Amino acid sequence: MIGAMAGEFAFIERLRARLPDPPAGVVGIGDDCAVLADGRLFAVDSLVAGTHFDLRWCTPADAGWKAVAVNVSDIAAMGGRPEAAVVAVTLPPGEPGLADAVGDGLVEAATELGVALVGGDTTSGPVLSITVAVLGRVPDGRAPVLRRGASVGDTVFVTGPLGLATQALDDLAAGRTPSPPAAARLHRPWPRVADGEAAAAGGATAMIDVSDGLSADIGHLCDASGVAVGIEQAAVPRPDGLSIERALTGGDDYELCFTAPDRARVDASFAAAELPAPHAVGAIIGGDRRLLLLTPDSFTDLPTGGWEHDIG
Amino acid sequence: MIGAMAGEFAFIERLRARLPDPPAGVVGIGDDCAVLADGRLFAVDSLVAGTHFDLRWCTPADAGWKAVAVNVSDIAAMGGRPEAAVVAVTLPPGEPGLADAVGDGLVEAATELGVALVGGDTTSGPVLSITVAVLGRVPDGRAPVLRRGASVGDTVFVTGPLGLATQALDDLAAGRTPSPPAAARLHRPWPRVADGEAAAAGGATAMIDVSDGLSADIGHLCDASGVAVGIEQAAVPRPDGLSIERALTGGDDYELCFTAPDRARVDASFAAAELPAPHAVGAIIGGDRRLLLLTPDSFTDLPTGGWEHDIG
Repeated sequence: MIGAMAGEFAFIERLRARLPDPPAGVVGIGDDCAVLADGRLFAVDSLVAGTHFDLRWCTPADAGWKAVAVNVSDIAAMGGRPEAAVVAVTLPPGEPGLADAVGDGLVEAATELGVALVGGDTTSGPVLSITVAVLGRVPDGRAPVLRRGASVGDTVFVTGPLGLATQALDDLAAGRTPSPPAAARLHRPWPRVADGEAAAAGGATAMIDVSDGLSADIGHLCDASGVAVGIEQAAVPRPDGLSIERALTGGDDYELCFTAPDRARVDASFAAAELPAPHAVGAIIGGDRRLLLLTPDSFTDLPTGGWEHDIG
Repeated sequence: MIGAMAGEFAFIERLRARLPDPPAGVVGIGDDCAVLADGRLFAVDSLVAGTHFDLRWCTPADAGWKAVAVNVSDIAAMGGRPEAAVVAVTLPPGEPGLADAVGDGLVEAATELGVALVGGDTTSGPVLSITVAVLGRVPDGRAPVLRRGASVGDTVFVTGPLGLATQALDDLAAGRTPSPPAAARLHRPWPRVADGEAAAAGGATAMIDVSDGLSADIGHLCDASGVAVGIEQAAVPRPDGLSIERALTGGDDYELCFTAPDRARVDASFAAAELPAPHAVGAIIGGDRRLLLLTPDSFTDLPTGGWEHDIG
């Protein structure tokens, strides 16, 4: 779902191995969302102060917003729309006003992103932590777009610039003030629900949201699909002044990355939804899982491991 | 949902006041679970080390079990059965083996309590924290049993002894070894799903699970229903050696408390499900919200505020 660092994938994989296989049509642990027997999507993500956000740099309302937004992004990454959410907030004692400030962001996100906030639980603990679970559905009778459907020859798309949130983080860490668009991307990400629907309607074969950085996230997609990918360096949309490495490895963008065989159909679907066309950044290729970064006269074999929580 | 301490209810109430009213048939914030438009039940609860469990006294697997069980208990408290769950685990760095030990308890609970664990997220943070969200459904086309349906004259039932978990906690705090049933109740609570179904089928008008202590939890039920309650001290099932005050105020039992107008019908429903009959402990009475503890020759007016998280 989000924020995976070293050891997490191994833990999740071991958990999955010990559970019974889900029934046909049900997608269990291992994609952006679970898919239930009735087609509903179900996602969960936690944001923890000091790990996923820093209250020196953002407001508690930003953290509340982001906790809803990153879960809605998981729904968007299946081509779905969010319906209902529940939230569990852990609050450090002795900080009057913190709960309501987080609540501001939760309510704003629920209202603006169109998800009904139907339940809540608060507990006390050492640091602010916000966990949201969201239910959603793929509209128009379409199937959810999983990570595992990419085929050799598919074009790889991203829905917007990569690295803006990282640029903001780099600026904050260096004591500079980030640009307003970069700060907005970091603190108030806007999940690409409309883009996810347009991608699904345009024939997307696999999709993931870019939460951990494109190289890590497309690595998961390639892993699930049993394919490799070539990314054209010049085609990756990124902010001025940011290196290609930071653009590919920086997380927190919450754009979508998807694959589709018919570029014209994708563009038509986005145009019909009055959305800017997505950026074609590369192609799915055969072979073992790896990511080739292509320039006009060379290529680089990139690691796809990305940013994993070290949980031992 | 669980573990409410001072300030939490005010926060949740303010959150609810700022959200749009849910559509007809939908139950939002304020009951054991949310009820969605299609009748599905949706609950979330977090367990935080140092707040809800203590790893000096229980295993990480116990904590994993309990995080699933307390959520299933919320589903049971509406008369429902659990279907699917997602889990978000926050793990302190540098504790190899902790993740898998928690996973042991998650898998055991999912398997034994009949809920499909379909999604997971792990993050790093200062203390172990486990948040589970569960979806469920009320079987046989029945409506969910809310907190707000109790009427004057209804009998009040509890499904089992109260105070066992508290007795175990008291023993542990005093350096004594708790009795095996008390320790099991504290560390491996068994949610009363079958009892909740039998109560609903037996005409229950209101129901809540006993997570914060009967006096607090029946206070919520009375508050929601606009009634008061008289509890007969001698009728409250409690372990030997535990005071009535500890039995009424100690949390973590996860028995169910429900109200119903027809005692014979309740008993018949439990008998049909091959369950022990629930304990009739009192009656719903009119008047402002309050709890009267009745003895043969006197009564005591008890506070119902119970155990709230102090979140300022």
